[in-house]
This record gives sequence, C-alpha cells and structure tokens, in this order.
Amino acid sequence: MDAGPELSTYLASLRLLIEERLKFDTELSGQCPQKLQEAIRYSLLAPGKRVRPCLALMACEACGGDIKSALPAASALEMIHCYSLIHDDLPAMDDDDLRRGRPTNHIQFGESTAILAGDGLLTLAFETLAKGISDPQVAIACVADLASAAGVEGMVGGQQADLEGEEIEEISLEHLESIHRRKTGRLLTAPLIMGGRIAGADLETLNNLKIYGESVGLAFQIADDLLDVVGDSRKMGKGVQKDADHGKATYPALLGLEESRKKANIIIEQACDAISGFGDRGNYLAALAKYTIERDH
Amino acid sequence: MDAGPELSTYLASLRLLIEERLKFDTELSGQCPQKLQEAIRYSLLAPGKRVRPCLALMACEACGGDIKSALPAASALEMIHCYSLIHDDLPAMDDDDLRRGRPTNHIQFGESTAILAGDGLLTLAFETLAKGISDPQVAIACVADLASAAGVEGMVGGQQADLEGEEIEEISLEHLESIHRRKTGRLLTAPLIMGGRIAGADLETLNNLKIYGESVGLAFQIADDLLDVVGDSRKMGKGVQKDADHGKATYPALLGLEESRKKANIIIEQACDAISGFGDRGNYLAALAKYTIERDH
Repeated sequence: MDAGPELSTYLASLRLLIEERLKFDTELSGQCPQKLQEAIRYSLLAPGKRVRPCLALMACEACGGDIKSALPAASALEMIHCYSLIHDDLPAMDDDDLRRGRPTNHIQFGESTAILAGDGLLTLAFETLAKGISDPQVAIACVADLASAAGVEGMVGGQQADLEGEEIEEISLEHLESIHRRKTGRLLTAPLIMGGRIAGADLETLNNLKIYGESVGLAFQIADDLLDVVGDSRKMGKGVQKDADHGKATYPALLGLEESRKKANIIIEQACDAISGFGDRGNYLAALAKYTIERDH
Repeated sequence: MDAGPELSTYLASLRLLIEERLKFDTELSGQCPQKLQEAIRYSLLAPGKRVRPCLALMACEACGGDIKSALPAASALEMIHCYSLIHDDLPAMDDDDLRRGRPTNHIQFGESTAILAGDGLLTLAFETLAKGISDPQVAIACVADLASAAGVEGMVGGQQADLEGEEIEEISLEHLESIHRRKTGRLLTAPLIMGGRIAGADLETLNNLKIYGESVGLAFQIADDLLDVVGDSRKMGKGVQKDADHGKATYPALLGLEESRKKANIIIEQACDAISGFGDRGNYLAALAKYTIERDH
C-alpha cells in the first residue's frame, strides 16, 4: 500500500498489531470443528488492507488513548467485515469465485461451511468486544455501535437494498448514496466512534469522528467505483469493470468520471475539516482521508 | 401446548409478553428495506413454543427478579434461535421447504433475503441486549453468554459438526452428545444463566441453573428424537421419521426406544435436583423439566 512513506509506515505498524490480535482471537478451543476454524482463519487472516481496524486504532490514538486498548474493537470490526465478504460472495448473493486473488470461502470449503464461518465470525465479533474491553459501559456502547452499523439498518440492510437495486433500471444518486451509506459507510464510521469511545472522547469529539467517517466512507466508495472503471486488475486482485458488467449503479455511470473525482475531493475536504480540532494528533487521519482518493488499488 | 393446567397458563402468560416484545424489537426504521423486515418478522413472529425466552423469564423470576427486566434477553434468545432455523433450512444446509407448517424463509422470500434475514436477526439480538439491559455490567455479561453459546464453540460449531456427522457411517453416543450439547444444549442453558444474571443471582445459583439447563437440553433432544420416531406428524408440524430418512444419528437408533426413555428420565431427575434449593420459586422450572419428556409435540 503506497500511502506516502510516513502514513505507510504507521499503517504497517498498526497492521502488525492487528494481525497478531486476529490470530489470537481465532485460536479457538477443540469445541470448534477444525474445518470451521480453518475456514474462518482462511478468510480472516488473508492479506487485507485492514481499513476498519486501522481506523479504530487511529481514532483511539487521535483521542489520546492507548492504541492497545482498541485492539478488541479493531478485531471485532475486521470479523464483521470478513463475515460480510464471505456471505456476499455466496452463490445466492454476488456469486463470486475470487476474493483478494484467492478462491472465495465457499469455493474452498463448500457452501454450508462458508455460511457457518460467516455466522461464526459475526458472533465471535461480539464475544471479542464483550470479553476484550475492560470497562463494561464502554464495552456495551461498542456492542450497540457495532450491531447498529452492521445490522438491518446498516450493512445488512444496505446489502439487501443493493441486491434489490440491481433489479431497478434507473437508480437515482440519492438512492445510490443511501445504499452505500448503509452497505459500507456505517461500518467505516463505527470504528472511529468505537476507537474514540475507548479513548474516553466526549460527545462533541465523537460527533466529529462520525462526520469524518461518513465523509471518508463516501469518498472511499466513489474512489472504488472509479478504480473499477480505470483500475489495474492485477493490483485490485479482482476483475475490473465487474460492477458495470453486473449492471450495478456506480458514481462514474451516474455523474461521469470528472464529476465523480470532484465530488470525492470536496468530501475529503469536509472530512479534514471535521478533525481539524485534533491538531497534530489528527495528522494520520487527515493523511488517510487524502490517500483514500489517491490510491490506485 | 398441554403442559398441565398450571404450567400451561403460566407459559401462556409469558408468551404474551414475549410476543409483544418481539414485535416491538422488530419495528425497524425505514433504513431497513421493507422486504427484509417482512422476512425477519415472517420467521420471528411465526407461532412457536418460545422455549428459550420462556426459560430466561422463568429463571429470572425463580431468582426473585422482575420478569420484565429479562424481556430483552428473552427477545435476543429467540432472535438467535430463529436466525439459526432460517440458515439451517437453506438449500446448502438441511434444505427444508417447510418449517412449523409454513414455507421456510428462503422459499417465501428467496435465498439471498433469507441469508440476510438470518444475519440481520443475529446482529439484532446483540443490539437488543446492548440497548435493552440497563446495568452495563449485566448487559455485557449477557452478550458474552449469548455469543459463546451461539458461536463456533456452541451452536454454530454444533451445526457444522452435525453436517460433518452425516458423512460418518457409525457415530458414537459420545460424539452425538457432543454435537447436541453444542447445537441445541448451549442455547437452552444460556437463557437460564442470563435470566439468573439479570435477577442478580450469585455464582452458585448460576451454576445450578447451568446444570438444570444442560440436563433439560439433553432430555429435550432425546425427547425430540423419540417424537421423530413415534410422534404425530400433524402435531409436530413437520414430517416424522425425517431424521431417520436423512441417515442422522439419533438416541433411539443408538440406544433403542426404552433405553432412550430411561436416560431422559434420569436426566430430568438431575435437572430437578439442581434447582431443589429454589424451593417453591423453582416449581415452574421443575414442572417444565418433567413436561420436556412428557410432551407429544
């Protein structure tokens, strides 16, 4: 990931902590059937950008908290993200054979194990929060944050709306944004709120993190759509133009390439404004926001 | 449900509270796509025995707690049970078209919606606990209880082991019990512990409730196996002999009818012993334990 030398080094250091924690949290007892554990670790420990867990750690640190205290939340967030990918790839959903350049979970382990691996990861996410965050009040608030972001009014609802949207001939920009906000936006905002919460941030700070998260989430989606049109299939690890082939509504399709880029830039400015009060502590968050729309994969 | 006039009336009164709460907890915002909400309510509000939520309320009351304080836990438990049924019925899993005498969720709403309805219910269960239980310490302990019982070392792991077991020619009694303990036992024990926790029960009491739950769970499974052999298809709401047709290991197949009945009786005695210290407050729990093996559907 080329994110500028400083941000890049910082993110790499966060990822080391995250990988270690993900391994630790999936060292399950003999009560978990071996094949199921393998399937879970196959997807969860696959190389990935770890965007959501990184955001949680960064928000925690930006609010003056100890980065390690946010690791359970970081791990739980990646579990939720990972389960959603496993279920989204299923034949009845997006029917994908390839994910991050490797066979998808159901191709590797069979469909029933993939369904259960997803269910297991979703459940393990909440167990990880409950057992890993020491302050009960913070822990239960994080459970509420994560469930709300991942559930039927968030990510799961967004996926449903997305699948239903494929059947609609003309989709409006408003409808597209509402889908993205739920499908990907909420789970990019939750890490920031959870990380801030764990650091003991006040309500105003949490609200600024929320605005930052919503903006970065939307910009991230626009950038993803742009990469699907102009990206490099080798770097993306999946077929490009896949969305267009599926007839999915995208920003470039609705706004054009140039307008989409402009929109992404404005949104990233808003994200940086929201965290301007953090001063130097917010530098990495600001750099990440800018990187969101500059990345090439 | 014929459970003796007194127990029957008591359970009916609990069920009224539970139904009301389940309706309340699934009155979702417009952020949840309508079809998804329909699918969730179709399965969750379908007529059912509400065994797990009833156990939570009964344990709470047996420990001197206010029954209403256990309603969020009761609701969350039914959501977990319901999601597991939706996913278990999927074509890639048990491939069932009928559930409680009605088309299964994926037959009614399509496979992708059924997967998402299950994911949504699983997530909503934790949101319901987090938002519904007022004491953060009790709430987070309940999240841990439920996640542990429902996850890869509990119910999800049991379902995986069960599916793998179908491929094994000869299954031992020990292996069968280990599957049942995870697949159904843990989610019958969790309500008792959660209900007790909400009532403020001490560790010894929680442990007695655990023993009661494990025993009732096992007896319930043996009784279910027996009903599959000798039951009445109309009362059961599903085809009898279905397990035998699927080549699944059952207690009657491994122990014979008479030995299975004997085993169930001994286990129920153990369950009643565990709650003998509750005195009169434990009467309904004792009656329910006995009813578990006397029911005809």
